[in-house]
Amino acid sequence: MAATIREIAEKTGVSITTISQILNGKGERFSDLTREKVLKTAKEMSYKPNFFAKNMIVSHTNTIGMIVPEVTDPFFSQMVKGAEDYLNKEGYMIMLCNSSNDKEREDLYVEELLHRAVDGLIIASPNILLSGVIKRMEEKRSPYILLDRQRNPRLEGNIAIDDFKGGYMATEHLIELGHTRIGIIISDTSFYNVHERYEGYLACMKEYKLTVKDNWIVSGDQTMKGGYIASQKLLQENITAIFATNDLMAMGTYRAALEKNLSIPNNLSVIGFDDIELSEYMTPPLTTIRQPIYGIGEIAAELLLKNLQNPTEKLENRLLDISLIKRSSTKTIDNK
Amino acid sequence: MAATIREIAEKTGVSITTISQILNGKGERFSDLTREKVLKTAKEMSYKPNFFAKNMIVSHTNTIGMIVPEVTDPFFSQMVKGAEDYLNKEGYMIMLCNSSNDKEREDLYVEELLHRAVDGLIIASPNILLSGVIKRMEEKRSPYILLDRQRNPRLEGNIAIDDFKGGYMATEHLIELGHTRIGIIISDTSFYNVHERYEGYLACMKEYKLTVKDNWIVSGDQTMKGGYIASQKLLQENITAIFATNDLMAMGTYRAALEKNLSIPNNLSVIGFDDIELSEYMTPPLTTIRQPIYGIGEIAAELLLKNLQNPTEKLENRLLDISLIKRSSTKTIDNK
Repeated sequence: MAATIREIAEKTGVSITTISQILNGKGERFSDLTREKVLKTAKEMSYKPNFFAKNMIVSHTNTIGMIVPEVTDPFFSQMVKGAEDYLNKEGYMIMLCNSSNDKEREDLYVEELLHRAVDGLIIASPNILLSGVIKRMEEKRSPYILLDRQRNPRLEGNIAIDDFKGGYMATEHLIELGHTRIGIIISDTSFYNVHERYEGYLACMKEYKLTVKDNWIVSGDQTMKGGYIASQKLLQENITAIFATNDLMAMGTYRAALEKNLSIPNNLSVIGFDDIELSEYMTPPLTTIRQPIYGIGEIAAELLLKNLQNPTEKLENRLLDISLIKRSSTKTIDNK
Repeated sequence: MAATIREIAEKTGVSITTISQILNGKGERFSDLTREKVLKTAKEMSYKPNFFAKNMIVSHTNTIGMIVPEVTDPFFSQMVKGAEDYLNKEGYMIMLCNSSNDKEREDLYVEELLHRAVDGLIIASPNILLSGVIKRMEEKRSPYILLDRQRNPRLEGNIAIDDFKGGYMATEHLIELGHTRIGIIISDTSFYNVHERYEGYLACMKEYKLTVKDNWIVSGDQTMKGGYIASQKLLQENITAIFATNDLMAMGTYRAALEKNLSIPNNLSVIGFDDIELSEYMTPPLTTIRQPIYGIGEIAAELLLKNLQNPTEKLENRLLDISLIKRSSTKTIDNK
């Protein structure tokens, strides 16, 4: 087994602190004799630096902490993948933590990651962070990127899409196909900028002078199950189309339609939001608003590394493109 | 900002090592006077332990490292969830790493996690680990649980399902519905014990005296896309049913069937394996062999913590139940 610094100290009679500094290339202030003795002994004893000891002296760990609300959500696992691929190429690894949308757990994970001396943090959060979190990162001078739909005030490093526009586009697509009675599935937790998407829907309906009934707006968890339950309610209404504010919820809509013997798109048009990989494999393939999920992860990683290299330089803001992906779940209205 | 040990050392004139040991409750061998002085000064200067310094002395970090082949695969994110929920309840956090099925990266992550003094490791791997990996964990006396379909030889801590039986059950279900021309989608990487499932299929076909043509066995990536491409090939054959050896690949089969205007289950029966959450939301809902994916994560966590508490005690082996979940993607054969 490899020797420890302590063992080298015993053998050479040099103090642990001195050895540690010499082995970490910070030993300029010690004599050549001491330096040589320590390095030679370390080599003879096949010393391998202990990570913790090393980190007390050198500051880089080449590790980025990443916290996401829910790793089982394909949206976030795709985002993680984008960040990870970018970081791996640059020689960094990711320590990933799952907050389960919980503020306290977010806080705990930030603390733990900082204790483990990650070089920086990417935090995807649906929350206004607990007051201590940002303070703690700033005290540790740890750069961070927030993917939080700008809930936490800041002037730089915003990575965003225009959710309002996306909501408007989705609704307009349905209207152009002849639909006028359009339900929407929104969400409480609103990580996906759902509120903005909802506002886009309302604005578009208004623009086209279409009525929106209260019962056409249903809220649910941002999961397949949430979409399923919400659309069961919607399908009791006299609607011909559903805008699900994320793709997972759209998937749930398919199940509810099937159980009512409604064919998508013949009896019901459905449009989603996100364009997760799943969407093109659904039966029928889902029409949706695409946002560059993988790209968001990549850009978060890119900005973070920039910030690491130039801590004083201001981070850019990035507004990413969205687009309508027409597949087979939406159709010109047959029967009113 | 909170004081460091170094600052306390400067103020008290006591050495860093001594202070560190006192602050970590290991200072019995120092005088009461020294201990008191250090503790009082630390309090006055609002000292907060630095994680790295602390870990040089105390051994527990309450962190478990977990490595999975692919976090975007719902099978693994579900498994992570099971482990995480169990560990969180017990006061542990997870550091998650993604190996992308790559041996070298697995090795690197094990090394990095050990450097960060995780208390133990859960490694889900499709690989025979590089020779250094297990040696390294044993040198560090770091307990670990492998979820590797027993590819790495060991006598304890095996968490398994009977994949052969599962493959047999899936095939028998199709045969009982009247199918005789049954294709199978297997995989190269074979994390999901695919080979055993394939052997179960072969044994069942033989038992029922049914022919298996070479072209009825197609290999693909264990993804939706992999299943899609593989089933495009299969659907050129004169078959009436497909056994996809995981649910994601079954999802790909739906797309290929749709593109050929084949209705599942009227023209084609499909059975999957795993029962990921997605399966019951597919159109039609997927018949599959359920294995307790979340439970595998939970049990891995449970065994690991047992091992942490009683390092000398032998770990149990666990064989978990599987079952046939009949949904709507399989049907009595209509037309031969």
